[in-house]
Amino acid sequence: VTGQGLQHLSTPVLLLDRDALEANIEAMAKSLEGTGVALRPHFKTHRCPAIARLQIARGAVGVCCQTVGEAEVAVREGITSVTLTNQIVDSGKLGRLARLAKEADVRLCVDHMLQIERASREATREGVEIGILVEVDVGGRRCGVPLGRDVPRLAGLAVGSEGLRFLGIQAYNGKAQGIIGTRGRTSAAAATAVRAAVARGLLQRAGIPCSMVTGGGTGTVHADTDSGVFTEVQPGSYAVMDATYAAQESETGYLGDQYHQAIFVLATVISTPMKDRIVVDVGLKSVAVDQGLPTVAHRPDWRFVSMSDEHGVIELPPGKTSSLGERLLVIPGHCDPTANLHDEFALVRHGRAEGMWPIAARGKSA
Amino acid sequence: VTGQGLQHLSTPVLLLDRDALEANIEAMAKSLEGTGVALRPHFKTHRCPAIARLQIARGAVGVCCQTVGEAEVAVREGITSVTLTNQIVDSGKLGRLARLAKEADVRLCVDHMLQIERASREATREGVEIGILVEVDVGGRRCGVPLGRDVPRLAGLAVGSEGLRFLGIQAYNGKAQGIIGTRGRTSAAAATAVRAAVARGLLQRAGIPCSMVTGGGTGTVHADTDSGVFTEVQPGSYAVMDATYAAQESETGYLGDQYHQAIFVLATVISTPMKDRIVVDVGLKSVAVDQGLPTVAHRPDWRFVSMSDEHGVIELPPGKTSSLGERLLVIPGHCDPTANLHDEFALVRHGRAEGMWPIAARGKSA
Repeated sequence: VTGQGLQHLSTPVLLLDRDALEANIEAMAKSLEGTGVALRPHFKTHRCPAIARLQIARGAVGVCCQTVGEAEVAVREGITSVTLTNQIVDSGKLGRLARLAKEADVRLCVDHMLQIERASREATREGVEIGILVEVDVGGRRCGVPLGRDVPRLAGLAVGSEGLRFLGIQAYNGKAQGIIGTRGRTSAAAATAVRAAVARGLLQRAGIPCSMVTGGGTGTVHADTDSGVFTEVQPGSYAVMDATYAAQESETGYLGDQYHQAIFVLATVISTPMKDRIVVDVGLKSVAVDQGLPTVAHRPDWRFVSMSDEHGVIELPPGKTSSLGERLLVIPGHCDPTANLHDEFALVRHGRAEGMWPIAARGKSA
Repeated sequence: VTGQGLQHLSTPVLLLDRDALEANIEAMAKSLEGTGVALRPHFKTHRCPAIARLQIARGAVGVCCQTVGEAEVAVREGITSVTLTNQIVDSGKLGRLARLAKEADVRLCVDHMLQIERASREATREGVEIGILVEVDVGGRRCGVPLGRDVPRLAGLAVGSEGLRFLGIQAYNGKAQGIIGTRGRTSAAAATAVRAAVARGLLQRAGIPCSMVTGGGTGTVHADTDSGVFTEVQPGSYAVMDATYAAQESETGYLGDQYHQAIFVLATVISTPMKDRIVVDVGLKSVAVDQGLPTVAHRPDWRFVSMSDEHGVIELPPGKTSSLGERLLVIPGHCDPTANLHDEFALVRHGRAEGMWPIAARGKSA
């Protein structure tokens, strides 16, 4: 993709390179073939039903969602298996989730007995069954019970609760995903797998069948798959990629040089106040900066130096120039919150725009 | 506002404390009374027509917008005077702006002759007049021509262009707004005013009437007003405030202790994995972190330590506890991009929810 042939698009606009997207989906599907490990990609990355359908068509068993709002959109759009990789305490939200379970296979993570009790009550009220995964803290220091007796205790509670079906363990280590350096990241993944295996062992010793160990992300997915511990993996970013994962990709080829940048924010140069500085119309409201300022595609030596609501300031290296109206492709530092800033993807194939895909779950965080 | 009495709201949700909002609007209006300086608050802060209408009802002469999409919403919602505090190069966007000028008084910033030529062409085509402000770089190092002969050159071009009406100078210094420490910020504001006065002098010497010097933001508004240079000020954040401006407020009372936090993201504690750590359902998709992680209202010693798409991890000080399901009020580090993550404000008065206001220009960055 270049910025040419897209002059009719009003900027900023989020582009989706269909060839790159399809190649990424194909590469992940291929990498899991014959491993016995299921792929359940994360819907939160793109919040776009059309992308989720492509992933499922290429073998994904369903999707992960992070919020009930996302799950409602996914099920409404025909996705029949959803794992909510998050904790829910609110009975109203659990009621909404239980209603979804009338139309789809729905699973939920828990790390406290209150969540189990309330989920059981809502599932029973709706006459449905919700699958339960006990989330274990495998190193991410976010949600999840510590490795220990709470693991079989909560699992046992789920086994004995009406309306719930205990499935196994959620073992996601978010901290491992972002480690720079393949060795460090792979070793964090190995430690994660060991902790997940210990959790499974605790269940076995308690006589509780554990049919599922699920987790992982784009940064560790191949190590997770090879670990022999995970039965399912949950990568999201691989489908569209971002500058953070691209840095991992380029670093050592851990991701196999097989995942390509598929989303870009198309920018227009709106001001050229100084020889070494230009301003584009991509700012905080069209690209997320929580993992750092974005990069510029095809311009490795151009550097964003600041960003405000609707402005991005780029410093040019000596000798390089731009001109007012030039179109640039901005690569987000973090794909998930960037997609959530936009209502739709403008599809691009072979450098030409070919329609829009709604980001139907944009804003559905509640 | 506290999190009590709001149990029926599904979280995360953006709250707007009406009493605080109205007090902020009143305080700014009062501070400008009798100064001869006009108030044109920035719509980009909240993107909410209902708030803009309150500001205008209390004396604002119109609004600033940062994008044509925002301006379209503002005019559609009955606002009759809009200054686009930004550069536009794209003829399609300039055409949209010219069409708005049929219904409203529309002004535009320029820092290059190409912008003037295209604006003139579109205004002429639509048979309207667009007000022109030459933006001068008064220290922000973003858009704007450097102080020098380009100032009268561009102004003269605007004066001679069909469909355009030259008004004066845009003198906004974004860098000054965020300076920590009243002395540094006030002295940056003074330097900004000097540069704006020099720009005005350049026009006077060239025989070009300059009826308007506009700029400033919440961080410098009172210094800008007192400078004797500005005829109009453009603060935005004062209406709703954020943790960054609150830090300035508390530091020395420069903002007069008169602006109060009016927006909050209501959060629910969804996981309590360790004694010293809780997890809430407010993450990167419901609060902007470009100016740092948010703070927790009424809990000055609770500290966000990390945030992911839908999770915020808070460390509790020794001896403090929380419980699953507790509601917390999260104060964004930066109000503008936070409001843009939400479709509406949930209005709160005296601790009770009393309806919703659409953030009608949410996502309108193009």
